[in-house]
Amino acid sequence: MAGRKPILVVHGPNLNMLGTREPDVYGTTTLAQIDASLAALAGELGWSVESFQSNGEGDLVTRIQQAGRTHAGIVLNPGAYTHTSVAIRDAVIACGLPVVECHLSNIHKREEFRHRSLIAGVAVGQVMGFGADSYLLGLRALISTLERT
Amino acid sequence: MAGRKPILVVHGPNLNMLGTREPDVYGTTTLAQIDASLAALAGELGWSVESFQSNGEGDLVTRIQQAGRTHAGIVLNPGAYTHTSVAIRDAVIACGLPVVECHLSNIHKREEFRHRSLIAGVAVGQVMGFGADSYLLGLRALISTLERT
Amino acid sequence: MAGRKPILVVHGPNLNMLGTREPDVYGTTTLAQIDASLAALAGELGWSVESFQSNGEGDLVTRIQQAGRTHAGIVLNPGAYTHTSVAIRDAVIACGLPVVECHLSNIHKREEFRHRSLIAGVAVGQVMGFGADSYLLGLRALISTLERT
Amino acid sequence: MAGRKPILVVHGPNLNMLGTREPDVYGTTTLAQIDASLAALAGELGWSVESFQSNGEGDLVTRIQQAGRTHAGIVLNPGAYTHTSVAIRDAVIACGLPVVECHLSNIHKREEFRHRSLIAGVAVGQVMGFGADSYLLGLRALISTLERT
Amino acid sequence: MAGRKPILVVHGPNLNMLGTREPDVYGTTTLAQIDASLAALAGELGWSVESFQSNGEGDLVTRIQQAGRTHAGIVLNPGAYTHTSVAIRDAVIACGLPVVECHLSNIHKREEFRHRSLIAGVAVGQVMGFGADSYLLGLRALISTLERT
Amino acid sequence: MAGRKPILVVHGPNLNMLGTREPDVYGTTTLAQIDASLAALAGELGWSVESFQSNGEGDLVTRIQQAGRTHAGIVLNPGAYTHTSVAIRDAVIACGLPVVECHLSNIHKREEFRHRSLIAGVAVGQVMGFGADSYLLGLRALISTLERT
Amino acid sequence: MAGRKPILVVHGPNLNMLGTREPDVYGTTTLAQIDASLAALAGELGWSVESFQSNGEGDLVTRIQQAGRTHAGIVLNPGAYTHTSVAIRDAVIACGLPVVECHLSNIHKREEFRHRSLIAGVAVGQVMGFGADSYLLGLRALISTLERT
Amino acid sequence: MAGRKPILVVHGPNLNMLGTREPDVYGTTTLAQIDASLAALAGELGWSVESFQSNGEGDLVTRIQQAGRTHAGIVLNPGAYTHTSVAIRDAVIACGLPVVECHLSNIHKREEFRHRSLIAGVAVGQVMGFGADSYLLGLRALISTLERT
Amino acid sequence: MAGRKPILVVHGPNLNMLGTREPDVYGTTTLAQIDASLAALAGELGWSVESFQSNGEGDLVTRIQQAGRTHAGIVLNPGAYTHTSVAIRDAVIACGLPVVECHLSNIHKREEFRHRSLIAGVAVGQVMGFGADSYLLGLRALISTLERT
Amino acid sequence: MAGRKPILVVHGPNLNMLGTREPDVYGTTTLAQIDASLAALAGELGWSVESFQSNGEGDLVTRIQQAGRTHAGIVLNPGAYTHTSVAIRDAVIACGLPVVECHLSNIHKREEFRHRSLIAGVAVGQVMGFGADSYLLGLRALISTLERT
Amino acid sequence: MAGRKPILVVHGPNLNMLGTREPDVYGTTTLAQIDASLAALAGELGWSVESFQSNGEGDLVTRIQQAGRTHAGIVLNPGAYTHTSVAIRDAVIACGLPVVECHLSNIHKREEFRHRSLIAGVAVGQVMGFGADSYLLGLRALISTLERT
Amino acid sequence: MAGRKPILVVHGPNLNMLGTREPDVYGTTTLAQIDASLAALAGELGWSVESFQSNGEGDLVTRIQQAGRTHAGIVLNPGAYTHTSVAIRDAVIACGLPVVECHLSNIHKREEFRHRSLIAGVAVGQVMGFGADSYLLGLRALISTLERT
Repeated sequence: MAGRKPILVVHGPNLNMLGTREPDVYGTTTLAQIDASLAALAGELGWSVESFQSNGEGDLVTRIQQAGRTHAGIVLNPGAYTHTSVAIRDAVIACGLPVVECHLSNIHKREEFRHRSLIAGVAVGQVMGFGADSYLLGLRALISTLERT
Repeated sequence: MAGRKPILVVHGPNLNMLGTREPDVYGTTTLAQIDASLAALAGELGWSVESFQSNGEGDLVTRIQQAGRTHAGIVLNPGAYTHTSVAIRDAVIACGLPVVECHLSNIHKREEFRHRSLIAGVAVGQVMGFGADSYLLGLRALISTLERT
Repeated sequence: MAGRKPILVVHGPNLNMLGTREPDVYGTTTLAQIDASLAALAGELGWSVESFQSNGEGDLVTRIQQAGRTHAGIVLNPGAYTHTSVAIRDAVIACGLPVVECHLSNIHKREEFRHRSLIAGVAVGQVMGFGADSYLLGLRALISTLERT
Repeated sequence: MAGRKPILVVHGPNLNMLGTREPDVYGTTTLAQIDASLAALAGELGWSVESFQSNGEGDLVTRIQQAGRTHAGIVLNPGAYTHTSVAIRDAVIACGLPVVECHLSNIHKREEFRHRSLIAGVAVGQVMGFGADSYLLGLRALISTLERT
Repeated sequence: MAGRKPILVVHGPNLNMLGTREPDVYGTTTLAQIDASLAALAGELGWSVESFQSNGEGDLVTRIQQAGRTHAGIVLNPGAYTHTSVAIRDAVIACGLPVVECHLSNIHKREEFRHRSLIAGVAVGQVMGFGADSYLLGLRALISTLERT
Repeated sequence: MAGRKPILVVHGPNLNMLGTREPDVYGTTTLAQIDASLAALAGELGWSVESFQSNGEGDLVTRIQQAGRTHAGIVLNPGAYTHTSVAIRDAVIACGLPVVECHLSNIHKREEFRHRSLIAGVAVGQVMGFGADSYLLGLRALISTLERT
Repeated sequence: MAGRKPILVVHGPNLNMLGTREPDVYGTTTLAQIDASLAALAGELGWSVESFQSNGEGDLVTRIQQAGRTHAGIVLNPGAYTHTSVAIRDAVIACGLPVVECHLSNIHKREEFRHRSLIAGVAVGQVMGFGADSYLLGLRALISTLERT
Repeated sequence: MAGRKPILVVHGPNLNMLGTREPDVYGTTTLAQIDASLAALAGELGWSVESFQSNGEGDLVTRIQQAGRTHAGIVLNPGAYTHTSVAIRDAVIACGLPVVECHLSNIHKREEFRHRSLIAGVAVGQVMGFGADSYLLGLRALISTLERT
Repeated sequence: MAGRKPILVVHGPNLNMLGTREPDVYGTTTLAQIDASLAALAGELGWSVESFQSNGEGDLVTRIQQAGRTHAGIVLNPGAYTHTSVAIRDAVIACGLPVVECHLSNIHKREEFRHRSLIAGVAVGQVMGFGADSYLLGLRALISTLERT
Repeated sequence: MAGRKPILVVHGPNLNMLGTREPDVYGTTTLAQIDASLAALAGELGWSVESFQSNGEGDLVTRIQQAGRTHAGIVLNPGAYTHTSVAIRDAVIACGLPVVECHLSNIHKREEFRHRSLIAGVAVGQVMGFGADSYLLGLRALISTLERT
Repeated sequence: MAGRKPILVVHGPNLNMLGTREPDVYGTTTLAQIDASLAALAGELGWSVESFQSNGEGDLVTRIQQAGRTHAGIVLNPGAYTHTSVAIRDAVIACGLPVVECHLSNIHKREEFRHRSLIAGVAVGQVMGFGADSYLLGLRALISTLERT
Repeated sequence: MAGRKPILVVHGPNLNMLGTREPDVYGTTTLAQIDASLAALAGELGWSVESFQSNGEGDLVTRIQQAGRTHAGIVLNPGAYTHTSVAIRDAVIACGLPVVECHLSNIHKREEFRHRSLIAGVAVGQVMGFGADSYLLGLRALISTLERT
């Protein structure tokens, strides 16, 4: 594990509101709690994580770009940008890392315009619908991918 | 009125250019003049307003989120983000406040891609097409809504 | 105000049922109450209003046509014809008056087929989603428009 | 049966031509004959019917509205308005009665633009394709519905 | 010519405004002038015409139905109902007469939603774009059709 | 009635779950109860019925094909295959019998992808929305059709 | 009439087959007969015509271009190119002459892909559905247009 | 764990070919190997699994229905039926169990017609793109769901 | 020829009805006659064939899968599943054999929903519209393909 | 065979490039080689062929028209005009001969805009995907058709 | 430069009208002037050009094919065929040369049906909107491409 | 040249990654190298350039707005925002400068969702597909435009 690059966890817009916003849709867990449980699981599996949240599309693009040199892979919940951001899609390609897309809710149970993901086509895979567990499963999936290659 | 939370007025991208940009479409009134007349009308009706403008989608998301704790409601002109921003839509839901959507021009008289509003479905209502009056009418509508509940 | 032509308020199909029909969507105010409050507000602002309701598309077309010679402007809630009537759209153009489109409910929160307005493209502007207040705000918007020109 | 409100049968545009118009599509039975057989069946089942036909969308809307206070339910053949009338749809909702939609012909065997019914989504159910029997079956369906509730 | 049934000319909604409405699109000729020139041309060719205008879809349906027993054919300008009325289409079929569809303006040079005619598929043919001449040419076309059969 | 071929009742996928599955949508009546009431009504009208249920598209195709030689007509509820099975549509044509399509629920009140029926265009007619009564009315419709020809 | 430029009649692909091809759709009149009757009518009205037929899109484009300097106007039946040729549309604009579009058959009674005309939006008007009379009426329409300007 | 109902793993069409079919898309792991690793993980977490594969839509429907009485939840890879089977969707609803949808490959990286899942809207969530790991992660997700409720 | 694997001929749903079903569309030849003439032609060309018919999608999938180990190639008429079966498409890929798609009728002359083939994109080629000859030509095409490689 | 009219083989645009253009898609056989093998096969079957290639849509139209009087049938590879030419479709109808459509490649494996054939609906049938064999099989299909009628 | 093959400049339909046609859209420069300035620039850069214009789709196809053996690359303004010609697209591929697509006007500022280019996907790149400069810039781009490879 | 305002070059999201990201698509040239060659070419032509890159949509909007007062024109590569940003489109209009749109790659050769440019309709013109040369040609085009006006 020594010398292993950390995994980046990227949270998109409005996820900083987690735990207070629409609890019937997203539950009462806060983002800090999710980040803590991700760190714990990563540690258990011999890895480390760093987390980043922003409401700005450009900031997310920049963070994902930079990770290409410093991190091993990304667990990405692009939030509302999932459905509209070609720029984040391009950043995912540009960073050259394996990226796993996660969503707290099942986007196919929500409004029509949330059913399409611009990110899915460039991610390794998707995990959605299991609340905070989506992140944990996504982290497991990413680590398996990293350890296989 | 003492103790009443202020109303937030949010102006989206390019609205800082008002009065200089395409005067045949948007008129010669500046944003500062609109903010002043909103403040005057609010005062007359026993309320106060604060204004915010940004060209950045993420900044608008953050400002709308924060208002949830500090303001009574929002008069929102999302500008060009009206038609593309799921993130602002989510912020409107997340802040938990009544939001009235305003547009200076009648978006249905413009290009096809401006006819759809992603915000409309989560706003209380819409006012559009009356130039700066759209804001004043929107403020009246918001205050009526606030005073009724 | 003497010599000023009155403003015509036109209510489309099923609006005569107001106050009894789907109160959770439209509230309990009756059309007579709305007409009364419009008359009061008009008087306050130095104008007068006349109201007309019909379930018939042809009758609405005829009434709007005639207003061209006798009224100063129109506050129009085309009801269900909003989405299907090219004939009312043509009458709005033909009458040559400024027309403000109003809706009690926010049509963008309802069924997909109610999202498109054939009237919006030929109206001065739209006000929707504020119940009976939509009419009052629409009347204000129309009077501002009339007094500016 | 004493005191039971009657059932309203509503026939839309061009149905007054029945028996003379396109007999290969609609058969040779006249509207009067259909109304008579409906009256007979209703009597047999302990109910009464009243019939109404109009070519005018607004007249149909008005008649359906009024039935809300005077009738127990409606057997409705909206004819050509089936495919275009949001106003009749709204009247069906507004009257608050159970409504059964009937068609002489099977609309799915005809032109593409006749395949969609704007009424179906607010009716209890549909019966189509059995000529005059569609009305009789629709009446039976309505009476079962009324007697169950 | 003695004993020949007259030809019916049917004008749809807003055509009563002709000569005053949008003169840059429709010219300054009034409907009475068009009817007079149609009568003159018909007389010249050994026929007679009767004219009918209504803004009501149902009235137009009823008038076309009745013509089936009393007239030889119809020159029909359905106006705005061209694009939305399945009921008038059905009446055209039901009356059993040859019908020629006319439009003052070229509907293909106007808004997208005016490009489709629901009537065209059941008319003998179409003439459009020549102002009042569209009616005169349509009358000639109908008379040729009648004299050939 | 002696010598009359029986009527086949065909139930598609998941209808074996009736009475236990989503009772708020489909009610608590079981398939056996429906079959019993169909048998009773058929007997009353001088006919007999046989029932068949399968979850397999191919089994339904085969059963409908065979009925062509042994039965007088079919009451068919294709269940979920209504919207996707060209093979059942072809079997309906191939068997050469009159087929009446029935649905317990009103498919137009459900998800968009349930609104289209591939069977409707080759059936005599449709009955839907009246729960178990849809079958009974469909049986009546089929018997009328059979006795008329 | 002396010195008046002639009118060009342009026939598109397959119209050379007229009178032999699908007589139930197009009748038994040949193209030569149509050209003769156009010449006769033009003479009667004080004008002359020249006719041109080609199966080649480029030849039609070139002929229409050249007419700009030598002819007064064009009666154009673009045949199958009606639905696909942007090049003929551009040539119509480029020649600068008034062009009347004619079709023997009513294109709206035929296959879906024949319903759209790329030429209609740049022609003065359309005449269709009256067989060879469509040309004669189109010629009258063009001459009226020419004499009015 | 004693008394706990087992979890059902359902594999759709062509998954029996796993390990031999398109190894560049699906890898070389066989279905038996996947089932073994699922059994191992389930055991580790205090649960048991049973597996079922079929190429037949009806068989899959029947198996899912039956599981409602005998199993605790379902890990479902509907294979090619993901995109076309309303019947399996209905069975998922009918069985009343929590269902997790899994795919070996990322369906959003494949043909357009594979991007839509008819199952997603009724599943708890989705896991895709991680090869055989998709099943293991899906099993974890299902067990978390089961243990939380 | 000794040791050559046989060619599999697969017939989809309703093809067992051939010769009795819609003879104006499909002719009076039975499936047994087609299989016999295929066997004869194969023999002539030094090959052998085996035939399989099923109405069940899953059975067809299974038969195509198995052929991968036992046959040299497949002549496939997927019948109604042509337009809806992703599972058969996947089986065609999975079996790894050259597959030629055949149809008795020209699917482009039939209903719109039959114009699309999900199989075409994974078949070597298509032959359609020549009745039973489509199979014979398809067999020739397949044998040429097999002998070339 | 004496007195038998020849069969026309028509090659559309760019097919003169065959053998040099995109050999990975179309192979290295030249058009002259294909024409020679067609002549050989025709002779074997007691018929003769004549071949024609042009890049011009109009030339192809004219050639197909003329064949109506001089040839027995047509083997047609419309090349790129397959997808856009209504004029060639009309010529196929106009010539009154049986026409078999052939393509070297399987058009369903290529770009989306090549999937639709405007010719298919008026051809006897289609053969595609077998390289030069598509022509030979198409010739066989045409001869069978000719000998049957 | 000695021995360098010339560059072909290909102008599509109606471009021969340049300088006289719609000068507000295309300017007053003639095609001869453009060809002269292209020759001058080519000379300056050590290359030569030859120009070709035709209104015929087939002629353009043939000219582009032939260039494959005699020219180094093509500057192509396909004019109206840009939007409809699969044949020119195929010729571009077939000739095997680098092709740069040019347009005088910005096609995205014109009618909707001009926004799509069938050529763009097979060209090296596009230059549009700069009047005659589009050609000069396109020539520069082509020469850079040629000199780089 | 003294006193001439500089030209602004604006690079959108991910273009800072140039030279490292997807070199097979974008080449190995860095953004700094492109900016240097633009400065060199501008100097040669008597102008100067300033460059700006950002990943943030709002920052790009603000920079373009400000340029209106300080620069002569803009060479704009909006990157991934090309396809989604109405706000940048509005900023282009608002700044009042001539803007030339450039892309390194040919967007029509990439994914469907990259084919549409929201910027094209408000730019002077487009240059794409020539790698870094697209910028140089775009700069030439802009300077020509500036010097002509």
